[in-house]
Amino acid sequence: MSTAESIRAGDIRLASRLIRNLEDKNPRARELVKELFPYTGKARVLGLTGAPGAGKSTITDYLISSYRATGQQVGVLAVDPTSPFSGGAILGDRVRMQKHAQDRGVFIRSLATRGALGGLAAAVDDAVHVLDAMGMDCIILETVGTGQSEVDVMNNAHSVILTLTPGLGDEVQTLKAGIMEIADLFLINKADQKGASKLYQELMRMLNMAQEHHAGWRPPVLLLQNIAHPEEFARQVEEVRNKIDEHYQVLLDKDILGQRERRKARLQLGNSLRASLLDPVVRQLEQSGEMDRLVRQIVDKTSDPHTLADELRDRFLR
Amino acid sequence: MSTAESIRAGDIRLASRLIRNLEDKNPRARELVKELFPYTGKARVLGLTGAPGAGKSTITDYLISSYRATGQQVGVLAVDPTSPFSGGAILGDRVRMQKHAQDRGVFIRSLATRGALGGLAAAVDDAVHVLDAMGMDCIILETVGTGQSEVDVMNNAHSVILTLTPGLGDEVQTLKAGIMEIADLFLINKADQKGASKLYQELMRMLNMAQEHHAGWRPPVLLLQNIAHPEEFARQVEEVRNKIDEHYQVLLDKDILGQRERRKARLQLGNSLRASLLDPVVRQLEQSGEMDRLVRQIVDKTSDPHTLADELRDRFLR
Repeated sequence: MSTAESIRAGDIRLASRLIRNLEDKNPRARELVKELFPYTGKARVLGLTGAPGAGKSTITDYLISSYRATGQQVGVLAVDPTSPFSGGAILGDRVRMQKHAQDRGVFIRSLATRGALGGLAAAVDDAVHVLDAMGMDCIILETVGTGQSEVDVMNNAHSVILTLTPGLGDEVQTLKAGIMEIADLFLINKADQKGASKLYQELMRMLNMAQEHHAGWRPPVLLLQNIAHPEEFARQVEEVRNKIDEHYQVLLDKDILGQRERRKARLQLGNSLRASLLDPVVRQLEQSGEMDRLVRQIVDKTSDPHTLADELRDRFLR
Repeated sequence: MSTAESIRAGDIRLASRLIRNLEDKNPRARELVKELFPYTGKARVLGLTGAPGAGKSTITDYLISSYRATGQQVGVLAVDPTSPFSGGAILGDRVRMQKHAQDRGVFIRSLATRGALGGLAAAVDDAVHVLDAMGMDCIILETVGTGQSEVDVMNNAHSVILTLTPGLGDEVQTLKAGIMEIADLFLINKADQKGASKLYQELMRMLNMAQEHHAGWRPPVLLLQNIAHPEEFARQVEEVRNKIDEHYQVLLDKDILGQRERRKARLQLGNSLRASLLDPVVRQLEQSGEMDRLVRQIVDKTSDPHTLADELRDRFLR
C-alpha cells in the first residue's frame, strides 16, 4: 500500500506524521495531499471557536461522545497559537480529552505553524483534507485565535459555532466581532453565572439588528450550564447537535452548500498560491545571499521594502 | 507641499486618510509610504498586548499621559480584528481614550484590514512608518489578537509588553504562549484581585525555566492595581515606563537594536513581497475569468488547489 492508501485506510501513525510535516511546510507532505484530495468531501466540518476559558474543550468532548454514540468517526483539529521560537503546538495532544484516548474512532491533533511567512490557513486546509480522506464523518475544528487568521480557518467549516461566557468583559463582544458575523450558532456557556441573561439580550439585539440573515438562517442562541451534572450537560449538547443538523439541512435546501464550496476552493487556491509563488522566491534570495543585501538597504534607508518588492516582482514575475 | 510633506508636517487629516487607504491596500498609498520611508526610524515603538478585558486601553491611556508630560508626541495604533463582511475597525477611534481627544500631540487610529488574502501585518508596518514620519516620538501598538498575526505585528516593536490579569482561567497562559516568548515586560493588571499572587508565581517559574534570557534581559513582572486611585495608578505606570527605558538601554548597550532592525526589515520585505507577487497574479486570474474555471475544477475534484497553484507558479514565475 502507498502512504496515501494507508492513510485512507485509517493509519493513525502515518496521518499524524503527515500533519506534522504539513506544519513544517514539507514539500513531500504537499504532494501527499494532492493524492488524497480526490477522496475528500465526505466529512461534515464544524468550526468551534470562542474566547479563552469559554469551555470549548468541554463542549468538544461532549460533541465527540454524541457523534460516537451514533457510530460516527470523529476527528478534532485544535488550531493553536504559534510559537515562533520554540515552534510547535502549545496545547499538547496528550493532555487533551483523555476520555477518548482509547477510542479508535476518535482522532485528535493539535496544529500550529512555524515560520514567519505564515501558512497557518494552508496547513489547516490540508489537515482537514487528511482527516476527511481518512474517513472521519465529522471533523471539529477548534480555534482559540481571533482576527483574520481565525476567519480564514473557519472557511473550512460547514457550521461555525461561537462560544461565549458571561462576565468576560464587554471587550469580548467587540473582539469577537469578526467571527460573530460568520457564526451560524451561538452558545452561552456557564449560563448559570451572573451576566448570562444580559449577554443573551445583547446577542438577541445584535441578531435583530442584522439586516438580513444569510440564507434566511437566523443563528440560534443556546444556553449551556450544569456541567456539574454530566447527563444534563450531554442533553444540552445534544440540542446543539440538532441545531447543527438543522443548519446543514438549510445549506442543502437553499443550495448554499455549492456556493460555500466554491468560496472554500477559491480561498484554498489563494492559500496554496501564496506558498507556491512566494516560497521559491524567498528561498532563492536567501540561498544566493541577496536577501542580506536587500535587508541592509532597508536598514540603511537607501531603499524601502515596497520599492525592493516591486523590483523583485518585475524580475521574478513573467 | 506634496502630500508626503504635509504628512511629515503633521497633517492629521491626510495621515488618517493614508492609513485608511493602507487598510484598503490602495496602490497610491503604498507609493506614499515609499516617499515617507526615508524619514522613519526615529520613533520608539511599544507593543502592548493582552487578553480581552486585561485593561490595555487604560494602561495605554496612562502611558500617553506619562509621555505627554515630558513633551513627547504619542501615536497609538489599535490593531483590531478584521471583519471580512462589514470591513473596517470595530473599536471606533471615537469611543477610545476621549481624554486625549483635544490634545494635538496625540494621534490615535484603529487599524483593520479587509480582503481574504490577509495583509494585516503589511498594513501595520506601513501605518507605523506613517506615524514615525509624522514625528511621533513614541508609538504604542495595541493588539487584541493572538497567534501568528500578533507576533508578526509585534515585529515592529522595540519592547513588547504583555498584560495579564488574575482569574481569566489557566487557558490564558497557554493561549498567550506565542507572545509570551517575545514579551520583554509582563504586567499583572488588577493585581488586587484573587489569583494575582498565583499568576505572579507562575510567571516567575516560567521565567526561571527559560534557558537563557535574550541579551541577558530577564523580563520584569510588574503589578498594577488601584485604578480607583488614579494618581497611584499613574505612579505604577511611571514605573512601567522606567522599565521600558531600561530595556531600550539594554538593546542599545548590547547592540541588539541593529539585529532587531535587520529582522524587522526582513519581515517587512516578506510582507511587501506577498502583496507584490501575489496580488497581480490573483487580479489577472479574476479579470480573465480563469479563477472561476479553476475554482470549478477544485469543486469537481478534477484537480486540487496545490496542483493548480504549482501550474500557476510555472506559468507566472520566471
